[in-house]
Amino acid sequence: MPTPETRAHLLISCPDRTGVVAAVTQLLWALGANIVDSQQHTEAEDARFFMRLAFDLEGLADGMDALRQAFEPVAQRFEMRWQLTQAARPKRMVLFVSKQDHCATELLWLWKRGELQAELPFVIGNHPEAADWTRPYGIDFHHVPITPDTKPAAEARHLELLQGKVDLVVLARYMQIVSADFLEALAVPVINIHHSFLPAFIGANPYAQARRRGVKLIGATAHYVTPELDAGPIIEQDVHRVGHRHEVEDLVRLGRQVERTVLARAVVSHLEDRVLVHGNRTVVFD
Amino acid sequence: MPTPETRAHLLISCPDRTGVVAAVTQLLWALGANIVDSQQHTEAEDARFFMRLAFDLEGLADGMDALRQAFEPVAQRFEMRWQLTQAARPKRMVLFVSKQDHCATELLWLWKRGELQAELPFVIGNHPEAADWTRPYGIDFHHVPITPDTKPAAEARHLELLQGKVDLVVLARYMQIVSADFLEALAVPVINIHHSFLPAFIGANPYAQARRRGVKLIGATAHYVTPELDAGPIIEQDVHRVGHRHEVEDLVRLGRQVERTVLARAVVSHLEDRVLVHGNRTVVFD
Amino acid sequence: MPTPETRAHLLISCPDRTGVVAAVTQLLWALGANIVDSQQHTEAEDARFFMRLAFDLEGLADGMDALRQAFEPVAQRFEMRWQLTQAARPKRMVLFVSKQDHCATELLWLWKRGELQAELPFVIGNHPEAADWTRPYGIDFHHVPITPDTKPAAEARHLELLQGKVDLVVLARYMQIVSADFLEALAVPVINIHHSFLPAFIGANPYAQARRRGVKLIGATAHYVTPELDAGPIIEQDVHRVGHRHEVEDLVRLGRQVERTVLARAVVSHLEDRVLVHGNRTVVFD
Amino acid sequence: MPTPETRAHLLISCPDRTGVVAAVTQLLWALGANIVDSQQHTEAEDARFFMRLAFDLEGLADGMDALRQAFEPVAQRFEMRWQLTQAARPKRMVLFVSKQDHCATELLWLWKRGELQAELPFVIGNHPEAADWTRPYGIDFHHVPITPDTKPAAEARHLELLQGKVDLVVLARYMQIVSADFLEALAVPVINIHHSFLPAFIGANPYAQARRRGVKLIGATAHYVTPELDAGPIIEQDVHRVGHRHEVEDLVRLGRQVERTVLARAVVSHLEDRVLVHGNRTVVFD
Repeated sequence: MPTPETRAHLLISCPDRTGVVAAVTQLLWALGANIVDSQQHTEAEDARFFMRLAFDLEGLADGMDALRQAFEPVAQRFEMRWQLTQAARPKRMVLFVSKQDHCATELLWLWKRGELQAELPFVIGNHPEAADWTRPYGIDFHHVPITPDTKPAAEARHLELLQGKVDLVVLARYMQIVSADFLEALAVPVINIHHSFLPAFIGANPYAQARRRGVKLIGATAHYVTPELDAGPIIEQDVHRVGHRHEVEDLVRLGRQVERTVLARAVVSHLEDRVLVHGNRTVVFD
Repeated sequence: MPTPETRAHLLISCPDRTGVVAAVTQLLWALGANIVDSQQHTEAEDARFFMRLAFDLEGLADGMDALRQAFEPVAQRFEMRWQLTQAARPKRMVLFVSKQDHCATELLWLWKRGELQAELPFVIGNHPEAADWTRPYGIDFHHVPITPDTKPAAEARHLELLQGKVDLVVLARYMQIVSADFLEALAVPVINIHHSFLPAFIGANPYAQARRRGVKLIGATAHYVTPELDAGPIIEQDVHRVGHRHEVEDLVRLGRQVERTVLARAVVSHLEDRVLVHGNRTVVFD
Repeated sequence: MPTPETRAHLLISCPDRTGVVAAVTQLLWALGANIVDSQQHTEAEDARFFMRLAFDLEGLADGMDALRQAFEPVAQRFEMRWQLTQAARPKRMVLFVSKQDHCATELLWLWKRGELQAELPFVIGNHPEAADWTRPYGIDFHHVPITPDTKPAAEARHLELLQGKVDLVVLARYMQIVSADFLEALAVPVINIHHSFLPAFIGANPYAQARRRGVKLIGATAHYVTPELDAGPIIEQDVHRVGHRHEVEDLVRLGRQVERTVLARAVVSHLEDRVLVHGNRTVVFD
Repeated sequence: MPTPETRAHLLISCPDRTGVVAAVTQLLWALGANIVDSQQHTEAEDARFFMRLAFDLEGLADGMDALRQAFEPVAQRFEMRWQLTQAARPKRMVLFVSKQDHCATELLWLWKRGELQAELPFVIGNHPEAADWTRPYGIDFHHVPITPDTKPAAEARHLELLQGKVDLVVLARYMQIVSADFLEALAVPVINIHHSFLPAFIGANPYAQARRRGVKLIGATAHYVTPELDAGPIIEQDVHRVGHRHEVEDLVRLGRQVERTVLARAVVSHLEDRVLVHGNRTVVFD
């Protein structure tokens, strides 16, 4: 089922005030749009309103600018932060990888099946062998080695490859900390997968930490990357039951299944414009 | 957090047509309502539209009739089936029980904690010992024995107790088949819990059937009762992992946990006006 | 299915050496026992061996001392820590409660159904209203109020009630920290339920912490109590999916379901002699 | 962690009699073996005993025949059906595929990572495009088209490729019914993945059936293939939550995740000698 050319996604957040829903739906109706999905949420704590609308509008592909102009007055009236996208237009997504292929392979496989609304111009990795993973999918691979000494140069190279050419970066078990400067210069969302149920087992070797603590579940967390390590807004989490029989290597092996599932779900939610960030939390509409 | 007196729930289903959402939200805005939650769904197969709105309106308690009158023209224009309820007004719910207390006890306990938006005027059972379960909760118990011979008389007695006095009947492991005539005369929804993952293991002794078939998961299904046995619209289902170590009695014991959880979730969804029936399926808004 | 009078449980841990299994099973065979279940585990890290055997032996009830004497030489030869129990003999279990009834009610209900191999001589609580929860089950309630000032006196009263009269204490949402001195004097296992997925959200108000961090799963942890708060060996954990719609109160409400399930499973595992402690971890045989 | 060369797996089933465990462990001890894992189960219904032992024995690779001879008297004494394998010796596994790659890709990926104790000499498929899936893994592909008319010839070709050269066949969404004659002639286990929670939705288009019935969970079932369609012993099952938003295509897409996970777990259990068949059920040791 390809996404229809006429389908748009509208994401809104604004102070919660009477009349927002009516104003938005009234405008869309006046423009001839048909709302096919609508979800909303009000955050009680700071009275902030969040909404996702999916609608169909004839001639959308050529009319995105006009639509944005028509919406601007409503947006200003309610002090909205908003984002309007043509659903059928794929986002440009780049994967960062290291030595572990499971998360990258999962995304590449889903992409090849047509389950990701994305273009994959290339993959970046700090180890050369990752070229082998991308070749069967016909995707370019850029090898950018990185050491503590060469990190600034490597990040400069990353920016050269990425700036203005990408809508989303996914750290598919990249295992390197990206700098605050890089994030700021990149200026597009970066999704990371952390191999624990955050905030448990922050930092290195979470499965060894989990084994030491004797937990009965291991987990994984997909989150947007922020300058503060392992503290960005969580998009998705899941867990897998473990027991005393499982050595650290078993946790690592079982964890791979959870990691790739959780990362894939988070990426799909992002690509389908289902995620809104609110401070260090997310609103994820189904 | 008690439900505010001003809160209303509006459930709508109608043919899918442009302008429904705009018309409804525009009307509510004009009346001064604030929409606090909104979910919708379009069934592609027959182009039918479903919506649930929760909104706050000052003076709602005294203005329900006026509100219904104001909504009627919109409802007619779009050929809606609709239901408008005051969220703070508890539904009158009656439990039917037999010899197993787990499902009834779960609901009674949730009710006592204030987690069910319901009144519980009494419980009906075909075995006298159930009186012991209801006594600690201060709820009346009506013992109505039933045998194949006395079934018509028993159902007549049920109707005498229930007609016009109840909004929902819950068969909390009642283990008796209710007749089509009774359902028609009762004319309110009846929710049943079936001790299998329907449509697997329809009929009697589903756990023995499950053990014989060697399944690795057992389940439970909460559904609206229809004249056709075990075939009504499913509201909720869940499963529990089992293995070769589990005898039939273990499946029964583990199954009790799933049954009471699944039934409780289904009852809560119904009481919060989250369920719309569509043929032999349901739309359940979160 | 009552546990047969002839059933024994043998729990063993010892350094991993060739011949342990043969020596134990040979002895049991020579005594005329029939092994009905056997599970073992070797901890690679410190080469420690763990085993649980369930077996049937005629005349067990009168022969426990003789059996222990017969086993002693084998135990010494392999430097075992071991425990032999008659499975049909209920353990004496006391619940500590506070203001929240859900965990206690779950255990009382399972106990009344005969699903716990335990005697429940009484319940201890620091708030008087808990008497209402125990009355329908015909169980005595001792009200022992506790404040920072009266804590030593209260714990002395606890010990007076418990010492030598109990095999297990369960903190069923007791919400008080028990002192190291109390634990030492009590000298029987104490199981606690913590309302988070430990080690995430240690300490007070874990659901508020979870909401602030924006996690997508909430959890509960049952563990043996040690002098170090929230750090004892974990017996069981589970989680429940949550989202942006869930306020702190919703997390508390959903968490109650997880807490009572997790605590009940841990208590059942303990009562069935399925748990061995190994440092700050547990071996839990199915 | 490669499996040590000294590791053996012993699977036993026999009538339940006192002394089995002692006899087996005594023998292994006398031979100098160290038991590293042991699990057993007695089926109450027909008093049948099942056991899996993993043990280490020096010189195992050259001593398998001697070991079998040493075990034979014990096996005869207790009327055992038994199987002894060298754990480090990979099983020869062949995949049958059709047009859907997800199950095959999952197994190929796990195999390449070294997570399957198996050789993969080749893959057989009835559609030519599957060659593209196997090429990146360096595995041969045999294209054997099949139509109702050519089925006997195709199965003859399959047997020519397989007989005596394979220990396990996996139908990785092969979508063809294999004949009873083929199964008999092949004479090794065949594992299939069925895209429903059997016994619900037997036969064709289970996801369309599931959507029609309005179930809230979809599932998958891995089972040994028997002449009776969809009725063989179940090895593993799992489910995924779905709702009214999910069209048949969504169920198919989500189902793919469950199918590949369930099939992979079943194959791993089989390859690690954890599965014993008992009538139309299985005993699966963890």
